Amino acid sequence: MFSVTVRDHMMVAHSFHGEVFGPARRLHGATFVVDATFHRPELDADGIVVDMGRAATELHAVLGAFTYRNLDEEPDFKGVNTSTEFLAKVVADRLAERVRAGGLGEGARGLAKISVTLHESHVAWASYERPL
Amino acid sequence: MFSVTVRDHMMVAHSFHGEVFGPARRLHGATFVVDATFHRPELDADGIVVDMGRAATELHAVLGAFTYRNLDEEPDFKGVNTSTEFLAKVVADRLAERVRAGGLGEGARGLAKISVTLHESHVAWASYERPL
Amino acid sequence: MFSVTVRDHMMVAHSFHGEVFGPARRLHGATFVVDATFHRPELDADGIVVDMGRAATELHAVLGAFTYRNLDEEPDFKGVNTSTEFLAKVVADRLAERVRAGGLGEGARGLAKISVTLHESHVAWASYERPL
Amino acid sequence: MFSVTVRDHMMVAHSFHGEVFGPARRLHGATFVVDATFHRPELDADGIVVDMGRAATELHAVLGAFTYRNLDEEPDFKGVNTSTEFLAKVVADRLAERVRAGGLGEGARGLAKISVTLHESHVAWASYERPL
Amino acid sequence: MFSVTVRDHMMVAHSFHGEVFGPARRLHGATFVVDATFHRPELDADGIVVDMGRAATELHAVLGAFTYRNLDEEPDFKGVNTSTEFLAKVVADRLAERVRAGGLGEGARGLAKISVTLHESHVAWASYERPL
Amino acid sequence: MFSVTVRDHMMVAHSFHGEVFGPARRLHGATFVVDATFHRPELDADGIVVDMGRAATELHAVLGAFTYRNLDEEPDFKGVNTSTEFLAKVVADRLAERVRAGGLGEGARGLAKISVTLHESHVAWASYERPL
Repeated sequence: MFSVTVRDHMMVAHSFHGEVFGPARRLHGATFVVDATFHRPELDADGIVVDMGRAATELHAVLGAFTYRNLDEEPDFKGVNTSTEFLAKVVADRLAERVRAGGLGEGARGLAKISVTLHESHVAWASYERPL
Repeated sequence: MFSVTVRDHMMVAHSFHGEVFGPARRLHGATFVVDATFHRPELDADGIVVDMGRAATELHAVLGAFTYRNLDEEPDFKGVNTSTEFLAKVVADRLAERVRAGGLGEGARGLAKISVTLHESHVAWASYERPL
Repeated sequence: MFSVTVRDHMMVAHSFHGEVFGPARRLHGATFVVDATFHRPELDADGIVVDMGRAATELHAVLGAFTYRNLDEEPDFKGVNTSTEFLAKVVADRLAERVRAGGLGEGARGLAKISVTLHESHVAWASYERPL
Repeated sequence: MFSVTVRDHMMVAHSFHGEVFGPARRLHGATFVVDATFHRPELDADGIVVDMGRAATELHAVLGAFTYRNLDEEPDFKGVNTSTEFLAKVVADRLAERVRAGGLGEGARGLAKISVTLHESHVAWASYERPL
Repeated sequence: MFSVTVRDHMMVAHSFHGEVFGPARRLHGATFVVDATFHRPELDADGIVVDMGRAATELHAVLGAFTYRNLDEEPDFKGVNTSTEFLAKVVADRLAERVRAGGLGEGARGLAKISVTLHESHVAWASYERPL
Repeated sequence: MFSVTVRDHMMVAHSFHGEVFGPARRLHGATFVVDATFHRPELDADGIVVDMGRAATELHAVLGAFTYRNLDEEPDFKGVNTSTEFLAKVVADRLAERVRAGGLGEGARGLAKISVTLHESHVAWASYERPL
């Protein structure tokens, strides 16, 4: 199995609800350094998993909907905890939609799965992996 | 599949026995930067894999039994090589016991597996992964 | 010249005012990974620059006043832009006060300067350095 | 499952053919920071996955065939795109041959798979994983 | 003293002349991860050292003249060794010209010096620092 | 001012004496990731600060006297605390001797200073800088 990963980041505000979150129930924020990994069993005709440049462009577009925003005010996230692991899934799902819509090119049709890791600090990160 | 990782470290002395270890048969030491990863197929009711704060606390407690110690003198490690990969398993097994004992909360009952990576330097690391 | 550095982090929300900030004028957030460096020309009687454990504790206490907070609502930061470089100075100044108050021990009287670096992402950081 | 990883690097020139590569069709170069991971279900009699020293030596030997070279002029790569993911496979395959030839010792017979990651920058990397 | 750093990268081919370079006299290549640091004694009216967005844009423009190129064929580098330390100076000098030309805004007039670090691998890097 | 840095590491056991060290008075150990930086005002005739290969070789030789050893039993360190900052000075001083003895080549005569950083974990490091 082959994979290719591109890294970008987003800076957001948010707060959590639920006792488990302690002081993180206050409005605070995070820089998420985001790694998006594209997996496929064989390389395409150009000898690649996916066009890295397009992968980076699509990841940047997905993160553009979050960055410099307060996630508590985003209609998409009404009533949910925008935990690091939850956001990893949202990013992975939105990348999957873009792959299906052709945003990563025809060659990307051969992709088998996507994994996304969000690093919230130098000592904590979360991931989500899904098939395509 | 979702996962959450927390990072901590421990500083230990030890030595190895067996020709394969060469100069590492002398008493020496290591800083192990330790990444503990908790996996589960679905998020819990709070929208998380596990309480990151509790995960960090439990990992710190597990590492507390090793740090600032000479592993050659620990009864638990009598006659074994405390290699990086061996220690990864010990940390993973001890975390698994704590999950079962409720140390990571009731929500942690849904965890599927644990992986632990010990970085012994900027150019070498080892991992162990086990089901829960 | 000797120095010792300890690393910790804080997660905050804030917004900026001024055209130069573009979309960062919206309420957003950041994880700041914070490196505090203590400099002195000679080691103390114990052979150290400063007690690393106490340095880490004091840094953690200083960051505790920021983390999981919205800096726009902190009276101390009324009307100022809490830019990464500005916050580096605030952290350095607060550490300097703690050194003077004896929080890092008597040995810390020999410290010559403090530098603080705040990493706001994997591609951007800011620093401030001041004498003691 | 256990694993052990060793890191090294190589510095090469190359160019790509195919429209998808845009400006990377010009002769350019890359530093590849290479992580080679060896996996096995149980530790050997010495309590290790593989002799880390030998693993590092073998990886260094494999990379020695590439480093300080122009891959466009290597007969092995005639007419192929030496993409990061393609090179990850070449390194993994050559390590697998060395394992089979006994270069990592008799104990390495128990290895189950090899994964290789090539980091081409701080924001992009690629991997290949294969059974042994 | 305050500073702000932005990071980017470039991928180039080149070769060296002179016995000291050994195998690096062959045509090879490198990824340079580039950190550009801007220093000033006081913050400007917006509370910053320099507009980080503009700093990143200017650095990217400077690196654009190198990336995906063979430096042996660039007229600017005829007969010189494009060592990592030499390139750090070229990047710093070109950034200084852009500061003087107003590319980083009027506020950047207060900058005191620029430092540039080029990382050629995980185990080697070089820097150049100059006044403005 | 130019500089060049090379990175290597060493793994040692040691213990400390003095109340300030708390549990670190027990025999324990550390991996020190070591960065040695060589500074000079102008490049030499080959366009470099120092031959990076030789710098790496000399650093490796200096660290070879420590690695896989118990520093408590080294005659050179009788009665001193081998703190991270103290060891940074020892490494810098030994590199300075090698420069003077010609180990880094004739060109290295132009070096102005050496700095050495020892990283003892992902959250703590220490440095020493001296003229040549």
